[in-house]
Amino acid sequence: MPTISQKGLHMPESPIRKLVPFAEAAKKRGAKVLHLNIGQPDIKTPQVALDAVRNNTIDVLAYSRTEGSETYREKLAGYYAKNDIHVSADDIIVTTGGSEALSFVMGSIADAENEIIIPEPFYANYNGFATSSGVTVVPVVSRIENNFALPPIEEFEKLITPKTKAILICNPGNPTGYLYSKEELQKLAAIVKKSNLFLVADEVYREFTYDGVEHYSILQEAGLEEHAIIVDSVSKRYSMCGARIGCLVTRNKEVIKTALKFAQARLSPPTYAQIAAEAALETTQDYFDEVKTEYVERRNLLIDELEKIEGVRVARPKGAFYCIAELPIEDAEDFAQWLLEDFRLDNETVMVAPAAGFYATKGLGKNQIRIAYVLEKESLKRAVNILKVALKSYIG
Amino acid sequence: MPTISQKGLHMPESPIRKLVPFAEAAKKRGAKVLHLNIGQPDIKTPQVALDAVRNNTIDVLAYSRTEGSETYREKLAGYYAKNDIHVSADDIIVTTGGSEALSFVMGSIADAENEIIIPEPFYANYNGFATSSGVTVVPVVSRIENNFALPPIEEFEKLITPKTKAILICNPGNPTGYLYSKEELQKLAAIVKKSNLFLVADEVYREFTYDGVEHYSILQEAGLEEHAIIVDSVSKRYSMCGARIGCLVTRNKEVIKTALKFAQARLSPPTYAQIAAEAALETTQDYFDEVKTEYVERRNLLIDELEKIEGVRVARPKGAFYCIAELPIEDAEDFAQWLLEDFRLDNETVMVAPAAGFYATKGLGKNQIRIAYVLEKESLKRAVNILKVALKSYIG
Repeated sequence: MPTISQKGLHMPESPIRKLVPFAEAAKKRGAKVLHLNIGQPDIKTPQVALDAVRNNTIDVLAYSRTEGSETYREKLAGYYAKNDIHVSADDIIVTTGGSEALSFVMGSIADAENEIIIPEPFYANYNGFATSSGVTVVPVVSRIENNFALPPIEEFEKLITPKTKAILICNPGNPTGYLYSKEELQKLAAIVKKSNLFLVADEVYREFTYDGVEHYSILQEAGLEEHAIIVDSVSKRYSMCGARIGCLVTRNKEVIKTALKFAQARLSPPTYAQIAAEAALETTQDYFDEVKTEYVERRNLLIDELEKIEGVRVARPKGAFYCIAELPIEDAEDFAQWLLEDFRLDNETVMVAPAAGFYATKGLGKNQIRIAYVLEKESLKRAVNILKVALKSYIG
Repeated sequence: MPTISQKGLHMPESPIRKLVPFAEAAKKRGAKVLHLNIGQPDIKTPQVALDAVRNNTIDVLAYSRTEGSETYREKLAGYYAKNDIHVSADDIIVTTGGSEALSFVMGSIADAENEIIIPEPFYANYNGFATSSGVTVVPVVSRIENNFALPPIEEFEKLITPKTKAILICNPGNPTGYLYSKEELQKLAAIVKKSNLFLVADEVYREFTYDGVEHYSILQEAGLEEHAIIVDSVSKRYSMCGARIGCLVTRNKEVIKTALKFAQARLSPPTYAQIAAEAALETTQDYFDEVKTEYVERRNLLIDELEKIEGVRVARPKGAFYCIAELPIEDAEDFAQWLLEDFRLDNETVMVAPAAGFYATKGLGKNQIRIAYVLEKESLKRAVNILKVALKSYIG
């Protein structure tokens, strides 16, 4: 029998994959499972996007342009301008989700012997793209006691070697909910300029910032023209995760030229989804205002209730819709499985993501979970109560 | 300035990419360009698929399952059964186009030091996926004088080393139009079993076989359970290239398990496109009959007319909708560019793909072009006539 690749053997599994069969079994046995484990919002997709697809007049569903349609990229440049990010359509390549953007970026900037520094905990799939590109992730630890703020810049400096090609951040952060300040980003800007690195920012949660703090993009920072690359997506912005439309944006012409070759190999991004994404740009501000209000209320409820539970420590998120909670237990994976297998409150239980999968350093995050506040407040309140009662029972 | 990767530098460009600006310039100057250069059919997408998307009732455009929706994979298994390929839904992973299937397969079976043997000329993007996976393509030459039939099996044997992981074929072939016989496939089956290799077949043109010859799939061959992997796509079958839905199919459980990890990293295939692809399975036989009749008529017209041109040699295609033609010139790339820049007949010209880009061996195919017969007969006839007159003028 022919053997699979070493790369394939080492591809990480999703942090929640092992739990999925237990969730399915729980449902089969009639339990209701409240999903706090995945960033799939329950928010309605903007009507203007849904309508555009329903009213499409396509007869021959043809390839679109490799780099995304001209009109969509032009309008995207307009969207960025409104966010004080001044780029042209030629600085943008439309991709099949933010995932593909990230994979094109890794391929374009790093070879198998290279390293990319990422503050941990980080979005688990960064590991997958790194493994599949053969690139090594070098983690720098951010800590729950500091709300997962940027680690001291000396920590990054210590890790930079001739093999280092980039620093990758997620801002606001999945799974931390941390929003980097302008000052923190300027520290990163200084170090990538000094050490001649790329600075890659996953900014898919740009709109989701709370408490009156504004998002600052690495593309707003002067002097980073050749260094800054952003990875973006419509998935969370317009609650259209299933579209699979994202983009990469950079003023570095060499990166665009190179990423375009990766894009050519896969021909084009999906046509229907581009129609939806282009129309979604017409979404009015009141949609975002409502969504933001909703997320702030959920966050406040979630954090307030979690903080009331004895022994639980939470990092207060300033953006996105995740938080990391540290529990008074040893093994969050065991706890998460136990919740699905053995615990019910009024026939309900909760599915959470064990946080260890978001760390590259072995042993970190073992007593932490990631909670996505993607449920409406009533369910969220019940979910936290279930966690509270369950913890007591699990510890006892 | 940070530098891009070696991998990125070596990513091949599409064989027609250099010609695109010349085609655009020609159009700007008012010329009509007949496109024989790309496999984008002019055939209408089945109404049932278009309607399914127009009538969709999605409110929250959510992620689908990583491996593709349960119902779609079940129905796909039914489609394969009708084609005498007996697989279950669990043997199928739905992908974002055949492109992604191929990239998951390469990642799952080969590491950077590995080699994959491919008969050349081959679909140019195989080079792209190999480069991006770090895998080396080892070509084995098939020849126009044999209609691009399978090279003698000894030629493959000579190339197999401990680094070899797979033989990859496209059947029917892009760019050759060659349809491998059952006997040829059984020779390949014997060698992959003997040498413990994977046999990967890109079968996206399965339905497009002519002259009463039936397609034989590697998944129909007994004893290849652990070796055979097919890459498939709805793009050409239903003329829905813009959907970006494909799949990989194999009975090898390790490959499925591994490819699924690559799939998890990119979350899910596009949701709207899956709706279209699932509905397309209801397409009735008369659609395929009509399309096949149309392609046969085009092929006959094209080949007959090409053979009338002095000095032109053509391999008669038995499937797909491409043919390779050898021209009485030295440099097909120069000729193709000249057609766009300098030649007009009644203000029309033709865009073709220089064939050198479909060979891995340097210097091969320099006097060949690939023609996609994706235009209706009237245009196709004018296109061949333009080629004829142009060749005379170019040589003279």
